Parts: sequence; structure tokens; C-alpha cells
Amino acid sequence: MKNAIFLDNAATTRTDPEVIDAMEPWLSEKFGSPATLYSMGSQAKQAIDAARQSFADLIGADQKDIFFTSGATESNNWAIKGVADALESKGRHIITDVAEHHSILMPLRYLEKKGWEVTYLPTDSDGMVNPEAVAAAIRDDTVLVSIVHANHEIGTIQPIAAIGKITSEKGVVFHVNAAQTVGHIPVDVNHLGVDLLSSSAHKFYGPKGVGAMYIRHGVRITPLLHGGTQEKKRRAGTHNVPGIVGMGKASEIARHSLEAEATRLAGLRNHILDWVESNIDDIRINGHRTERLPGNVNFSIEGIEGESIMLSLSYPTAGDARPIYVSTGSACVSGSLEPSHILLALGMPAELAHGSVRITMAKADTQEDVDYALEAIAAVAERLRSMSPVYKRGNKKCSAGSSSQGCDCEAAS
Amino acid sequence: MKNAIFLDNAATTRTDPEVIDAMEPWLSEKFGSPATLYSMGSQAKQAIDAARQSFADLIGADQKDIFFTSGATESNNWAIKGVADALESKGRHIITDVAEHHSILMPLRYLEKKGWEVTYLPTDSDGMVNPEAVAAAIRDDTVLVSIVHANHEIGTIQPIAAIGKITSEKGVVFHVNAAQTVGHIPVDVNHLGVDLLSSSAHKFYGPKGVGAMYIRHGVRITPLLHGGTQEKKRRAGTHNVPGIVGMGKASEIARHSLEAEATRLAGLRNHILDWVESNIDDIRINGHRTERLPGNVNFSIEGIEGESIMLSLSYPTAGDARPIYVSTGSACVSGSLEPSHILLALGMPAELAHGSVRITMAKADTQEDVDYALEAIAAVAERLRSMSPVYKRGNKKCSAGSSSQGCDCEAAS
Repeated sequence: MKNAIFLDNAATTRTDPEVIDAMEPWLSEKFGSPATLYSMGSQAKQAIDAARQSFADLIGADQKDIFFTSGATESNNWAIKGVADALESKGRHIITDVAEHHSILMPLRYLEKKGWEVTYLPTDSDGMVNPEAVAAAIRDDTVLVSIVHANHEIGTIQPIAAIGKITSEKGVVFHVNAAQTVGHIPVDVNHLGVDLLSSSAHKFYGPKGVGAMYIRHGVRITPLLHGGTQEKKRRAGTHNVPGIVGMGKASEIARHSLEAEATRLAGLRNHILDWVESNIDDIRINGHRTERLPGNVNFSIEGIEGESIMLSLSYPTAGDARPIYVSTGSACVSGSLEPSHILLALGMPAELAHGSVRITMAKADTQEDVDYALEAIAAVAERLRSMSPVYKRGNKKCSAGSSSQGCDCEAAS
Repeated sequence: MKNAIFLDNAATTRTDPEVIDAMEPWLSEKFGSPATLYSMGSQAKQAIDAARQSFADLIGADQKDIFFTSGATESNNWAIKGVADALESKGRHIITDVAEHHSILMPLRYLEKKGWEVTYLPTDSDGMVNPEAVAAAIRDDTVLVSIVHANHEIGTIQPIAAIGKITSEKGVVFHVNAAQTVGHIPVDVNHLGVDLLSSSAHKFYGPKGVGAMYIRHGVRITPLLHGGTQEKKRRAGTHNVPGIVGMGKASEIARHSLEAEATRLAGLRNHILDWVESNIDDIRINGHRTERLPGNVNFSIEGIEGESIMLSLSYPTAGDARPIYVSTGSACVSGSLEPSHILLALGMPAELAHGSVRITMAKADTQEDVDYALEAIAAVAERLRSMSPVYKRGNKKCSAGSSSQGCDCEAAS
């Protein structure tokens, strides 16, 4: 895919070449299992311990509290089912919000079938959870609060530190899915006041198939994978040594480059937000305008399908055009044609949710790429709208914070 | 580790260079997530589907019945907890045997704490399970039988097809942990009559961090990882594309080379068995003499510690000696100094269990390497015995099938 512009980095990122270099010896000649006592094994064990320290440093944690997994989905399942199992005798109530990732919502639905009660807090129209609502929802039988750090679709960053203060005061375990934030914005488990934190390497230039869970010392949680004594008997299975080493390297790189890169991406993000508002009629910005992932832009284009935009951009008809990869809805559910459950949870009508475009940038994306993509998006939107039987130009522009009452977004549908 | 002789291939194998080559593009430029609809995503999806077909071909399965996981430990946990969850209303009884891997035993112990009943069938002194004992143990409330295909420590191959006939007739779900057999001896899910089969890529020259589960069409099993729609909603989480592609390549290579390699390794194995019996006094061969993994040798050397042998071989004192990596007990529990639960389950006294040496060979190991290792083992045993306060030469030799009554193995301790 020569010259392609990849703007779907919330789904996955390109593994950093330095990360691949770091992994390489552990894929080939240094193949020993860290569970073995001879020198090949102890070398692998040292490499894992170094990666653990590197990841711990990235999130301000003690390395003893880091446990490697196969990714954020495993970590999220472990957090929810593991705490539920360990604390069942205390109570069977969990608090989350309506705009969580499926790897949070689906384990919770599973628990509901087992008789657990789950409170799904609403968000405001920007996708923000109110910490006071968390406080009000906590009951004597609440054993877990799970709130995402930043939404993978609309980029809204939640007031985690404020929620962490509440859960800490009330003595309720607090889990945060930080798959979208670790390596992209500062994450400090103590500042945030979290007890459990999920992360995935491939979201920040590490390899796929490896992730981690932070478990604050003293938090009770049943293993999801029982078996050997790996990870202090909390997560069994032969270590994915190359993957873990890669996650360690990605953590080290992120720790040094994160701040400057976040500033650069936030500049690009704001540029896109301004540009689409000025150059495309009848759009709505989804997610919070400022409390937002640096690399995330999400907007709905009235009268057309996000899927159509996405496919038109990725398979351009002009021979010399560059393919552009953006997303609509969640990468985990595309393939289904249902509108994003997150946009619906924000109170958006299904028609507008269907028209959402998500642009998520990463370190390879330049101002030039972004400008190329913006012109292409505007041209595709124009073309698709010209064919649309429903779209009429000149509806009132929908922007962040506008309620569905005060906005004509629905008028065209 | 130049010139090292790696004889611990049941713990992990060296990833085949062809496998690494196949993975490489998916680690770097082809980094798209297969859950996405644009061309980078569909390329990744095609690569995963090809790997699925390749693995299915290796085990005689329909590709629709293959589900990728993070390894055999996840697959084993999934099989046990997933079937238990799905069939709980039918009954709460599971059958296994005493010599299983910890990734089977520990999930079962977890279920026992929840009120499940588990029957642990005994094995004979070679570690073999009697199919008739399985038949006799099945009750109306039995929902699962889980028996390993071949023991990771002593190499004994179980009569899976005979057991599969019984479970099939009785309508009980049959799970087989095939981590040690897939890619090493012929495995055919229909011939074996299994409903669920676990496997791990790194056990047959694939990468660490990826495995699979075969789930026969129609078998009810609850997901272990809930979330996105990956793997037909049965195993959520962004696909480990490079890992899965590597597993597919390893499967393809194994399918073509397995038979000749199994024959070669069985020859080496028999050579070792004969050699140690002829050249080292007072040893006992552990596991079945013929119904045994081609690359596996396990014996106990009376009067000395396996740990001492292992460390002496891996850190040789002579400057020009080649390091040799063998195992004692399970790789998953070494680091603890407890004797192998498997050898104890066979009725072996703890002293002899402590003296076990496991040699597990793979395609890189030559006759020359093996002969070098044998001389070194004999020399180390001689040296350690000369320092032993308990060992007295001339005890009756302990061999396969000798009971502890008919053998003086215990006399020295």
C-alpha cells in the first residue's frame, strides 16, 4: 500500500521498527522459556523483568504490580470477572457507563445473566461521565467501578482522577481500561487513583497479542488463566517473550516521546476540527472538544453513510489518488452494519451515527497527509451527497454540545 | 549460546526461520487489523483465514471449527471453564486424570471450590489412563472428560481414540490437551473422536503467544474472552496477526515434515533409552516405553537431584564444554523445588522424582549432539554420586514397569 495514509490508529498502530528490532533476537536465537532455570531461561526472565520495569515506569507503577496478558480484551475480561469472582461475597453490583468498549460491556452482560446487577451510568452529549453520578451510584454491595480512560471512538477523556478519589474514599475497586491512553497521554496510576488498569501494546506502536494489567498491591482478583506459576501465579501460560520485550521497548520509546507527540497531534486534531467545520456543511463533531485524545477526530456527516465514505477513501477510483484509511464505528464491530452503540448512547439518532467518520492519527501522520485526507473527505462527501435521495443542503450546522432539539440533523432523514 | 545443545523442546521450541520470515510483513508494513473493512484489514483477514485452514489441515478439522487463542493454557482454561459454564444445568461433574498439566488441574481446582466434583482417574506406573476407567467414571451428571494427548513430562501417549469412542457413545464432551502432540505426531480430531482440542504454536516451531482451540460444530461452550465479534464472537480481542500467520506456517511445515521427523526422533529416543540403561547404573525409565512421544526421554537417576544435573549440564565447568539444556520436572513449576506432581502421581517416591531428567528433542538435534549429551550426563551423574552421602552403587536397577516393591530404588534414600 504505497503512499497510503493510515488514519485508523485507534484500531491498531504500526509497530515501531525499533520495537521489531528489539523483539527479533527473542523470536529467533533467544527462544528459551523464562520458566526454565538454565541460562537461556534466565536471560528470557531478565528480559521480561526489564520490560515489566519499562512498562511500570510508563504508568508510574511499581513493577511488582504489572502482569502481562495477551492484550486489553483479556485484561478487561480479567478485571471484571476476576474481581467479581473474588469479591462476590461482599456484593454483586458493578458500576460502568453506557459508552464503554465491548470488551467491558460483554463481560458485564455475562455477569448479569449470572444474577449480577450492573448500573450503566449515562454520559453527557460529549460522552463524559459525571463523577458525582458515580458517587451517587455506589451502594453497600458495589464491588467494582469500571470506566474507560478515553473512549476509543469519540476520544473523550474521562475525569478518572476525580472518580478515583471517590472510589478510594468509598473503598470500591476501580478499574480503568486505558487501551487508548497508555503511551499517548500521561498515565499515572497513583495520580489517577486506579486499582486496576488495562493496556494493549499494539495501541502504542508495540506488537499485537500482548498487553498488561496493573493490579494495585492488595487488590483481590481471581486469575482468568489458571495453570503454571508464571506472573506470580496470577496469569498462567508460557510467556510471549518477544511480545513482552516489544511492549517494554514501546513503553520506553513512549515515555520519552509522548509529551512532544501529544502536543503535535493535538495541533493536527484542532486543525482538522476547524477545517471540517469550515469546509463541510451539516456536520456534527462527536466527543468533547478539548478533553479529547490528541490524535482523535470524530464527526458525523449528515445524509451519508460512514461506511460509504470509508470505502470510497480506501479504494479511490482515480489512479493516482492515495488510499486513505479511516474508520466508522468501532473496528471491533465493523463488518456488522449496526450503528455505533457509543454514538447512540450519546443520544445521537441512528442516521447520524451511521454517518460518523473517525480519524485517529499517530506519529507517522504529517500535516501534509492530513491536508490531503481532508480534501479527499470533503470531495467524497460532496459526491455521495449529490447522489443522496435524502440529503438537503442548508440544514443548520450541528456542532459539539448542540442537543438534538436545537439541531436540524434529523430533518434530512 | 554458541554450540549449546537444546534438549528441552517440550518446554518450547526454536521458531523455524521460515516461520519468522512469514510473520515479518505482518509485524511491520502489513499491520492493519483484520476487523477493519478497508484493504489492509481484508488482507489481514485473508492471512488469518489461510492460517486457520493450514492449522485445520494439520489436525484433520473443518477450518470453521478452529479458534485462535493466546496459547494452550488459554485454550485449556477455556475448554474447562467454558464447558462447565455452558453445561452447568446438565450436571457438575468432570473427569480427568492425576497426571495432567497444571493448566488443566488448576482450572479444575478452581471449579471444585465452586462446588464442582472432579474425578481424578489414576494412571498405571507408565502414566497411562485406562479407557475402561473413563467409561466406569462417567455419570449422568458428567459434562466433560479432559485427558491429555501426550504427557509433557514423561511423554506417554494416551489411548485417546478409545476414550473418544466412549465419550461419543455416552454423549459427554471430550477435551484433549494436544500441546505436546500437534505438529509432532499425527493428530486427527475425527479419528481421535475429540470435541475440543488445545494446541500452542511455540511447541511445534511456531511463535510464543498464540495457540488454537478446535471446537467441534455444535459443542456448547461459553467464551472466556467476551468483547468484540472476532472469532465468530467466541474469542474477542484484536487478532495477533503475525502470531497467527506464524502458527499457520508452522502447521504447513509440520504437515509435510512430521512423519519423517517423528521416525527420526523415535530412533534417537530409543538409542538414548538403550544407552542410559546400559551405561548408567540404578536408573529408572519414566513413562511408557513405546507409546511415547518420539522426542521424549525421561529417567530418574537414583541418589542425585535432577536440579543438580540440569544446572551442571547447562553451566559446564570445563571451558570448552558445550552447555546442554535439559529439564527436570515441569518447566511451569521449576523454580519451585517441589518434586514433579506427575512422577508422584505414578507412585514414584519423592526421592526418585527429584532425580528425574527429561530430554526432549526437536528437529535441530542430531545424533552427534545426543551422544555428546549422553556422555556429559553420565559424567555428571558419576561426579554427583561420588559426592552423595546417600547413594550406594549396586542397588537393583530400576526400569520401566518395575514396581516400587520389586525395586530397591528407595533403599538408598
